[in-house]
Amino acid sequence: MTIQSFIPPHRILMGPGPSDISPQVLQALSRPTVGHLDPLFVGMMDELKVLLKYAFQTENEFMIAVSAPGSAGMEACFVNLVEPGDKVIVCRNGVFGERMRENVVRCGGIAITVEDEWGTPVSVSKVEQAISQHPDAKILAFVHAETSTGALSDAETLGALAKQNNMLTIVDAVTSLGGVPLLVDKWQLDAVYSGSQKCLSCVPGLSPLTLSSKAIEKIQARKAPIQSWFLDQSLVLGYWSGGSKRSYHHTAPVNSLYSLHEALLILKNEGLENAWARHKAMHEKLKLGLEKLGFKFVVQEEYRLPQLNAVYIPDGVDDVKVRSHLLNEYNLEIGAGLGALAGKAWRIGVMGYGARSENIALCLRALEESLTQ
Amino acid sequence: MTIQSFIPPHRILMGPGPSDISPQVLQALSRPTVGHLDPLFVGMMDELKVLLKYAFQTENEFMIAVSAPGSAGMEACFVNLVEPGDKVIVCRNGVFGERMRENVVRCGGIAITVEDEWGTPVSVSKVEQAISQHPDAKILAFVHAETSTGALSDAETLGALAKQNNMLTIVDAVTSLGGVPLLVDKWQLDAVYSGSQKCLSCVPGLSPLTLSSKAIEKIQARKAPIQSWFLDQSLVLGYWSGGSKRSYHHTAPVNSLYSLHEALLILKNEGLENAWARHKAMHEKLKLGLEKLGFKFVVQEEYRLPQLNAVYIPDGVDDVKVRSHLLNEYNLEIGAGLGALAGKAWRIGVMGYGARSENIALCLRALEESLTQ
Repeated sequence: MTIQSFIPPHRILMGPGPSDISPQVLQALSRPTVGHLDPLFVGMMDELKVLLKYAFQTENEFMIAVSAPGSAGMEACFVNLVEPGDKVIVCRNGVFGERMRENVVRCGGIAITVEDEWGTPVSVSKVEQAISQHPDAKILAFVHAETSTGALSDAETLGALAKQNNMLTIVDAVTSLGGVPLLVDKWQLDAVYSGSQKCLSCVPGLSPLTLSSKAIEKIQARKAPIQSWFLDQSLVLGYWSGGSKRSYHHTAPVNSLYSLHEALLILKNEGLENAWARHKAMHEKLKLGLEKLGFKFVVQEEYRLPQLNAVYIPDGVDDVKVRSHLLNEYNLEIGAGLGALAGKAWRIGVMGYGARSENIALCLRALEESLTQ
Repeated sequence: MTIQSFIPPHRILMGPGPSDISPQVLQALSRPTVGHLDPLFVGMMDELKVLLKYAFQTENEFMIAVSAPGSAGMEACFVNLVEPGDKVIVCRNGVFGERMRENVVRCGGIAITVEDEWGTPVSVSKVEQAISQHPDAKILAFVHAETSTGALSDAETLGALAKQNNMLTIVDAVTSLGGVPLLVDKWQLDAVYSGSQKCLSCVPGLSPLTLSSKAIEKIQARKAPIQSWFLDQSLVLGYWSGGSKRSYHHTAPVNSLYSLHEALLILKNEGLENAWARHKAMHEKLKLGLEKLGFKFVVQEEYRLPQLNAVYIPDGVDDVKVRSHLLNEYNLEIGAGLGALAGKAWRIGVMGYGARSENIALCLRALEESLTQ
């Protein structure tokens, strides 16, 4: 086997992530590596915290990027907040709710699941019922924007419900951050994690994470030790807490953090509200075009994520053949269905830098041509 | 706070890692992102496995890069191989041996520590003694190249000892891979992890990991579930095992993997033996120069790592002042002491792309000027 340098083609990424990345972010990625304890790098990390706080709309002191993908961000929340025997209400309306349940079990917690159909949001009344049946539950965990279905849940109401019942919330904001409103402080959310490769349009591999002071209190009051060393946030904080006291925990992924800094700066300069409006406008364009082509959406309009459009594959259309054709002929990637929707739906992402008119136009035209070829 | 794009200076990295990165690797890093399930990307990952097997000198079927830094590679070994109640002999002669012990405890295992002085290698006779006192121990864990001290341990003899006693080995090869001989199959090592940012001269954030068939058997025979979802290698393998059956686990850090592919290709083209010889030759140059300047090494010559040179800070010399001067005046980073050696030693890395005559010359000259300024 003769191996040569890998020169990837220029794909247009309209799947569930990674999303299209702006040339500016890729350029930042390849800037010269400096040491992870270099004072200049430490300064950049302080700025990164400020930019992340803006994106999450929070004043939380605890604001970091986990040095690993969103799944590790999820696990960081559970291993730190769930102690053996803790009851956690987990809402399951797609792949990532199920992953949350797995995490609870692996932490020795007791998972009470609230089930909703794939493609529907988390039912607030079912959660209310679960809380009244399990008044000893300590945590409510749910996915804000289900990447497997494209359904948006009402994080504000769920957050308020948890607070009324003296519970903490763990919220998956992997696909929501930067694409739809997410107001961590206003909605009183406690542990919120995201991913770099969705609406932030940064390279995959980082998971922004914020914890409220109430979440920190629960971690500090733990009796059982945290089962993960790598994800033990009491140790990680020693590195991220800034200033000259910064202590070594692990070697930060320096270059990836450059690119996150750049991606967040782009978001800040555009303004969150403008970014949300752009996602919505591009979604509307795509929706009109898809409906003209006869596509039906998996999710009802009211709960639909603009950045993740799950549509049923039309009858008689070969899933793999069309997606391969789009990829090979147009360099266009759209996403396959996942879990219960595998083979039944496609997921078209309109995320971050990918939420542009030229991408929508290409996608619609290429889909039309591929379906009628 | 006005935040602008972060433009780092060009540092020369001669600390304990991250090491100097070749422009070729940084260029690979910023190539266009493709989807993590793109057939072309899957092909690149198959090549990456081949290149990693060469670097580790193994035919192990299980060969991946964990999507997180070396500490996560370490944790991946322990959470998968150690079940609650398992006895693990852990050799502690620096920071990373202690981290291994922490991992054993967090997995519910029983850690039997074999203690050696910082700066000395793991004592084979002490390990023999520990094994005879604990014949029920299932795993022997040790650090091949201690990044905190620069001491090389005899992985070949320790590996043979473990096999004679029907034990598995967990080996930290973070700083050894690519810098000194590491022969995973010949030495019969079972779980070996490394880091991208040392002698491979790739960006920080990835942890190459290989498992022997015996290690896989132990994982498959587990009764207790693996406490980490993210690091559960039985799940990760579904993604890395290749071909069209590739299943989604988490979004791979696409661009970082491009750069690892490129870094490993550079190593393959140079040849492992040549890379080892180059590290040794550059170490000799550095050693001569350092001795002329009056420096004393922490580690005896016999056990000294060429790629990580720990030297005592001369009496009367201000640690922080000199390192800051090197950084600010020469853009040269050398490493501070860690743990027991904090404030007492410096760690000068000669790793991967950084193991070049021009770096050695600069380091010696800049050190001389800084000490006498």
